[in-house]
Amino acid sequence: MNFSFDPASPLAKLGVSVPIIQAPMAGWATPALAAAVSNSGALGSLGIGGMKAEDARAVIRKTRSLTDKPFNVNVFCHRHAAADAFREARWLTFLEPYFARFQASPPAALSHDASSFIDDDAVLAMLLEERPAVVSFHFGLPALAAIGALRDAGIVLFATATNADEAGQVADAQIDAIVAQGAEAGGHRGTFDPAASDELLGTMTLVRLLRRETPLPIIAAGGIMDGASIAGVLALGAQAAQLGTAFLVTPESAADAADRAALLNPQSRTAFTKAISGRLARSIENAFTDIGRDPGCPSIPDYPIAFGAARALNAAAKAHGSSAFAAQWAGEAVRLSRAMPAAELVATLLQETVDAIASLRTGFVIGSGSDTSRLHP
Amino acid sequence: MNFSFDPASPLAKLGVSVPIIQAPMAGWATPALAAAVSNSGALGSLGIGGMKAEDARAVIRKTRSLTDKPFNVNVFCHRHAAADAFREARWLTFLEPYFARFQASPPAALSHDASSFIDDDAVLAMLLEERPAVVSFHFGLPALAAIGALRDAGIVLFATATNADEAGQVADAQIDAIVAQGAEAGGHRGTFDPAASDELLGTMTLVRLLRRETPLPIIAAGGIMDGASIAGVLALGAQAAQLGTAFLVTPESAADAADRAALLNPQSRTAFTKAISGRLARSIENAFTDIGRDPGCPSIPDYPIAFGAARALNAAAKAHGSSAFAAQWAGEAVRLSRAMPAAELVATLLQETVDAIASLRTGFVIGSGSDTSRLHP
Repeated sequence: MNFSFDPASPLAKLGVSVPIIQAPMAGWATPALAAAVSNSGALGSLGIGGMKAEDARAVIRKTRSLTDKPFNVNVFCHRHAAADAFREARWLTFLEPYFARFQASPPAALSHDASSFIDDDAVLAMLLEERPAVVSFHFGLPALAAIGALRDAGIVLFATATNADEAGQVADAQIDAIVAQGAEAGGHRGTFDPAASDELLGTMTLVRLLRRETPLPIIAAGGIMDGASIAGVLALGAQAAQLGTAFLVTPESAADAADRAALLNPQSRTAFTKAISGRLARSIENAFTDIGRDPGCPSIPDYPIAFGAARALNAAAKAHGSSAFAAQWAGEAVRLSRAMPAAELVATLLQETVDAIASLRTGFVIGSGSDTSRLHP
Repeated sequence: MNFSFDPASPLAKLGVSVPIIQAPMAGWATPALAAAVSNSGALGSLGIGGMKAEDARAVIRKTRSLTDKPFNVNVFCHRHAAADAFREARWLTFLEPYFARFQASPPAALSHDASSFIDDDAVLAMLLEERPAVVSFHFGLPALAAIGALRDAGIVLFATATNADEAGQVADAQIDAIVAQGAEAGGHRGTFDPAASDELLGTMTLVRLLRRETPLPIIAAGGIMDGASIAGVLALGAQAAQLGTAFLVTPESAADAADRAALLNPQSRTAFTKAISGRLARSIENAFTDIGRDPGCPSIPDYPIAFGAARALNAAAKAHGSSAFAAQWAGEAVRLSRAMPAAELVATLLQETVDAIASLRTGFVIGSGSDTSRLHP
């Protein structure tokens, strides 16, 4: 039982044998997770968005110590935040009563350290030295010079797109594959311009729209939790499926006990909120997503400035045993989560994918005349 | 080339040979459309929500004059609207400037005629006499007595569900199949309780959640525009795909020239709005969806009371050559619309579905040892 990519596919060139990519999930994907996934024949990923170059180098090297297979390193390419002292002060004041629940106060001010790969020369230099097999971009694209340097270093490049316009920019930049992120996906929308109106296209629609508009390989992301949905997105024309939430409950992820309890709670629901980080992201519904829905909620500071307040509030809550203010990123299909080791999850997903394709074949009698044959699983 | 349903499937029992259902689309699905689809081996549908019993009988008989194949008749099972004179008056006042653009005034009052199948004995009696092959329910379920009477008359029953709780109610009522309506779908969300918080689950997530929770056949609806997406939802475990928007641009639909221009405009986008009917529905973005986003937009009258104002405003606009206030229901994948006759569309969709399944098979090498065979399309 095996998968054969189009030989021209970037995944085929990488030697990836399973059409599954573990999403980078900055903060949650560990070297152990990425390595376990890559060792299983799929493509593991690290998310180094927000990390300093040397810290990122350490996790890349740690991962390399655990696998000799290719893996993906994801960077954040957001435009720089617009600092706004009034908006930030008002936000901190608005959050005062929430901090007060935990006998705490908001920080006096929010950090404006909002490093982005778009001008982080140290991270670029580190990547050119470490040469991970794949580098992927989220929130936009870096300058063409950086893209060219990475490509010249033999690194395969992916970039997230949430609509056809962004996909066109990705294709124009000669990226190797598009991560088509549907609205079902957990965590941050990869939208290039967070101020633009977002249609929130679902994975199915987005893959079909992009399939029509570009010959680039498409990696479908959002709402994929099992082999049936992997078979589904392959049928849509994706070359591979990227799963994040499904890997959050593996023992290899950095999810803590409270995260795992929320992820495995059959009552958990997800919602989009900007209140945690300043950018739209899908999280398990909790006190933070409620804040974002409060009609009195003021304008939220830019990403990632708002994150400083969220981290402080979460820390205050955790100190009192509450995880009500955690950033519990998860996709809308979170209720389909299954806790098992990453390698077992990849094997399960692959077997389910094969089974789903086989059962599809039993439904259709394909061919005509003497060529007709009923295909059995 | 053919499709073989599980022999126990309600679609198999009906003699439907193509796993495609044309959505009922009250106001847009005509006898000519339903008959053309059913004559093609798929299942055509009529939407009689909002029609009087004798008018509905006429369209059923008209359809029967055009096909001897089974078709589906959809009814609306909404709870009765709560009249609210203050809210309605305020709504009409709010709309005054919009009417004024067309030298018109809002109606003096809104009709409270909000007939629902839940207590429309005349429509029930008519259906028991006419005995269409399938009756489907939207916005909820009628009383068990009505369900039993329809079943005893040999009618196959479908009902829409937008989440697992509604699907559970459908299963408990011994309905034959669930129409799993994802958030991508055009027109009205089938939500049972419009006041309940709506997760807006996408089609992919909803089908997988329901597939796990119920053995009932699932008909996937929302975002399906071509054979690749039909193959996709079949891979997810759906027994059939229901397509509405894809059929709106067939010559057999009741869409007018302005509707068709909007549906085929590559710039068209869709959005949810309650401003047209009082219930959440997905429409092509136009002046009406803008109204719903206006921060000054007051509370909207209950469905279908608000519809009276929308119809009057649309009529005033149309009289001045504007279709800016039309109810242009469409799914989020509207940009994948292709104008062709309904029979040709069904044949195209079926061929594409077969092709998508065949190309899936080329990706996987299934089996092991001497049983291994590379499947070619």
